[in-house]
Amino acid sequence: MKVEGRDTRSISVEQSPDGRSRPMIIDQTRLPHELRFLPLDTVHDAEAAIRDMQVRGAPLIGATAAYGVALAMRDDPGERSLRAACERLFATRPTAVNLGWALEEMRTTLDSLPASEREVEAFRRADRIADADVARCRAIGEHGRALLDTPEAASRRQEPVQVLTHCNAGWLATVDWGTALAPVYRAHRDGVPVHVWVSETRPRNQGSSLTAWELMQEGVPYTVIADNAAGHLMRSGRVDLVITGTDRTTACGDVCNKIGTYLKALAARDCGVPFYVAVPGPSIDWTLGPGEADSIPIEERVADEVTEVRGLAADGALAAVRITPAGSAAANFGFDVTPARLVSGLITERGVCAASADGLLSLYPDRDRRTP
Amino acid sequence: MKVEGRDTRSISVEQSPDGRSRPMIIDQTRLPHELRFLPLDTVHDAEAAIRDMQVRGAPLIGATAAYGVALAMRDDPGERSLRAACERLFATRPTAVNLGWALEEMRTTLDSLPASEREVEAFRRADRIADADVARCRAIGEHGRALLDTPEAASRRQEPVQVLTHCNAGWLATVDWGTALAPVYRAHRDGVPVHVWVSETRPRNQGSSLTAWELMQEGVPYTVIADNAAGHLMRSGRVDLVITGTDRTTACGDVCNKIGTYLKALAARDCGVPFYVAVPGPSIDWTLGPGEADSIPIEERVADEVTEVRGLAADGALAAVRITPAGSAAANFGFDVTPARLVSGLITERGVCAASADGLLSLYPDRDRRTP
Repeated sequence: MKVEGRDTRSISVEQSPDGRSRPMIIDQTRLPHELRFLPLDTVHDAEAAIRDMQVRGAPLIGATAAYGVALAMRDDPGERSLRAACERLFATRPTAVNLGWALEEMRTTLDSLPASEREVEAFRRADRIADADVARCRAIGEHGRALLDTPEAASRRQEPVQVLTHCNAGWLATVDWGTALAPVYRAHRDGVPVHVWVSETRPRNQGSSLTAWELMQEGVPYTVIADNAAGHLMRSGRVDLVITGTDRTTACGDVCNKIGTYLKALAARDCGVPFYVAVPGPSIDWTLGPGEADSIPIEERVADEVTEVRGLAADGALAAVRITPAGSAAANFGFDVTPARLVSGLITERGVCAASADGLLSLYPDRDRRTP
Repeated sequence: MKVEGRDTRSISVEQSPDGRSRPMIIDQTRLPHELRFLPLDTVHDAEAAIRDMQVRGAPLIGATAAYGVALAMRDDPGERSLRAACERLFATRPTAVNLGWALEEMRTTLDSLPASEREVEAFRRADRIADADVARCRAIGEHGRALLDTPEAASRRQEPVQVLTHCNAGWLATVDWGTALAPVYRAHRDGVPVHVWVSETRPRNQGSSLTAWELMQEGVPYTVIADNAAGHLMRSGRVDLVITGTDRTTACGDVCNKIGTYLKALAARDCGVPFYVAVPGPSIDWTLGPGEADSIPIEERVADEVTEVRGLAADGALAAVRITPAGSAAANFGFDVTPARLVSGLITERGVCAASADGLLSLYPDRDRRTP
């Protein structure tokens, strides 16, 4: 998508003067106040980028981890190095399923190769993982666009379609296009008037920082709201549909996503607003069936993210302010589970389906977990 | 309740050296970082204190407005001054019903008096409004305590009762004791182990600033969470009951309260967690019946409260940081409506009742709106 008018990906590979591949990321912890590109030169850089959330979003974490393995192979293509890289990268973020998926892809590819071929093949495979992510997100945009651009919406074309989203499931969470925002971008580029309610997404404010920044760069009209306001907006008829992303969706359609998603789904159900989740295939955890979503590890992060808020100070520097009394206890849960019964549909790269085992199997017949 | 170990009210009257009554408030915009008492010397001080949210919370707004009228009477006890004071004070905050109720009490009392008697009587009446608020809140604490200190809770006395609250409906929102927190304070003072999950309450963070500060001062264990986390906590069985306050509750039990209350009520219903609202009588709007809650004006405040967060900077000064891209649109709705069907019960100064017209009339038989 556009950044300062130029097409940009959240992770891309530059060629160094010495001809080596050099993955570049955007330091998302500095957005929306500063646009800074960072090189990843070692597997430790990749590990730190994921752990410190310079990159975040399940698909982008997967792609970054893949490049991390490639960087490890450049440094030492041995068996122990491969295993250690995968283990270290896997430990960075426990909730996203794409991380394990991308690492498994890399390991399977590299295991059978002689060490001398691993670096080149690892970069090639990581590139393919990134490109495949872009293709999936573009397809999610195509399929999801139909949900925005309904005949009803077309008949009142003067008024924008009102989409509410949570957290950032835009292109910054993927390699390009995004998941939840892909249908918005597709519709907007096709001339469908659309307006996005951006839920700020405390404690890290990925909505007010990243989603708002993305939409502004692409020229999509949006309004930032406090997370608390989503229910009121839906009750007062100002939301046509909700679309969120997911960090992990089970084989029966239960959705693990950023903390607060469940509350929005409840409000959507109570108000009769369709609630869709954009789910790229690699975010589906085929090993989890009914009732098993509650076994997904819910990351608990440092309390500082709750007791302090980071932003741009009056002097133009990034700074944190504390919002609690000194010494307050705080708990910081990263994700929650939205039961499939609250989800109107899943938007995948293969089409839109019901949030159910049958719905998912209709699109992914090859992944029936009952037939190993 | 306790502040630095001393019993303190949110508004109290000092005698000046010249023998005049001088209402004193706590500047709540500086909490939890700085405790500053401020005098109200004119009706304009009272008006500004309410408008700028140095005082907030429906009951405290009512008491402050009453003292504001008294201050106006000191300055000019004439008819025009009385009318102007009531009008200006009424315009400060549109959602809370106590404001209109307190001003009506003052006007009714003063209208029939000669100008020469108005100042003294106005202060006397304002004192009575404040004292009556304390008595109501204390009674809410007594009635609500039984909901926390159930036989089931007593049987596992080693574990604290887990209460979740939203915004600040503690003593800072009233004159003393609070509404939603009164049962917590009563139970805690009686030795019942209790722990409070404090929802931070964006955009103004009254939870993480005011509720956390109150609980800390009183020695009640608490943990601050992002607003988004309430659903996850309830789904994972970590909340025994929710208690919130209300700015206005209709005659049939629909609850207008701080934005985000509705989302918590939805989660409580979905998870089978009891959801109670503490409602002092003056917060009941007897003029509003079924379906009429949506006619309550929902205050829209300045966008800055969403795009910026205020807190304590590293240098020890109060500062704001911007969390959105420069130029972002933001919407700032102050309140939402929680339908009575989601409310397990109303805790009033007269007892606990169902959130329904019949429930309220069982406690307030004199206020049947059908018999004018």
